[in-house]
Amino acid sequence: MGKGNIEVSSFDLDKYVRKVPDFPKKGILFYDITSILAAPLAFQFCIDRMMEIYKDKNIHAVAAIEARGFLFAAPFAARMGIPLIPIRKKGKLPGVTLSKKYDLEYAQAEIEVHSADVPRGKRVLLTDDLIATGGTLNAARSLLTEGGAEVPEIFGVVGLPFLNYKKALDPTPVVTLINYHGE
Amino acid sequence: MGKGNIEVSSFDLDKYVRKVPDFPKKGILFYDITSILAAPLAFQFCIDRMMEIYKDKNIHAVAAIEARGFLFAAPFAARMGIPLIPIRKKGKLPGVTLSKKYDLEYAQAEIEVHSADVPRGKRVLLTDDLIATGGTLNAARSLLTEGGAEVPEIFGVVGLPFLNYKKALDPTPVVTLINYHGE
Repeated sequence: MGKGNIEVSSFDLDKYVRKVPDFPKKGILFYDITSILAAPLAFQFCIDRMMEIYKDKNIHAVAAIEARGFLFAAPFAARMGIPLIPIRKKGKLPGVTLSKKYDLEYAQAEIEVHSADVPRGKRVLLTDDLIATGGTLNAARSLLTEGGAEVPEIFGVVGLPFLNYKKALDPTPVVTLINYHGE
Repeated sequence: MGKGNIEVSSFDLDKYVRKVPDFPKKGILFYDITSILAAPLAFQFCIDRMMEIYKDKNIHAVAAIEARGFLFAAPFAARMGIPLIPIRKKGKLPGVTLSKKYDLEYAQAEIEVHSADVPRGKRVLLTDDLIATGGTLNAARSLLTEGGAEVPEIFGVVGLPFLNYKKALDPTPVVTLINYHGE
């Protein structure tokens, strides 16, 4: 791991996270991960780090929230050789599902998972590209645990701790590769 | 490639594509790829086949249509070490975009790509999980070619040629790993 560690500590992921002011609305600074996808070394760095962090943690499957969560979880699942559990907006999954409503700022949302995808009694890593308020991840965690899985940890490439995701996701540990602390 | 070819020819991908009747509406037989994601060997098979087909074809980047297209294109991009260009529904990408309207059965849809992601004069493999009418892929191809890229080939894991995608996507060659021919 010597060589890997040197590369990791010298890699500046921040350079590859584009900051877009006033998106999706005025006053919001949007942290864009598509600029990571455009840079193969940065994308590789993220997947390599996920491997380093989780390869020896007895993870049975990885769950990911659509759509951007798929982008990091899919290469991780393929490299780990473990199942990928897609968590999608209501109405997208064709099989028998578990579903969960949750509150957004001014509305309600609902997400689903295929019941048969949730491994009873097994450890599932829950992931998304970016963790902000933690609202969707909290609902996703409920889906997985109500289906009988354990969620020992939640992973995001980017974290915005000033939006209080730790409170929403407590007591599950949250790991991110880079954090931003507001403007 | 001897060993690879033997494995390829003996792998029955069909077993991992779940067929769901009457989804999303009565009379439609839905071909579900999430059952591939649940089976690491099947998922690996798909990515391995993409690698075999494209590793020597001088592909500069891979474009993928959200959300399910991300699931296969992301591991492929990571393994190839090439950029991944996400093509998304209107309003999801925060940067300067090219956009394209196209007709669905009873409505219009619009997709976008970040202009800066489209590599001028370079070969981009356009991908999705499943190719049916080819309508969205046709619009996506226009986005890429109007942005100055070449689209030498279109790839899907599953093809439904009875829905006439070849006509919509002509003259671009379409490659799929498995085809279904209607009920």
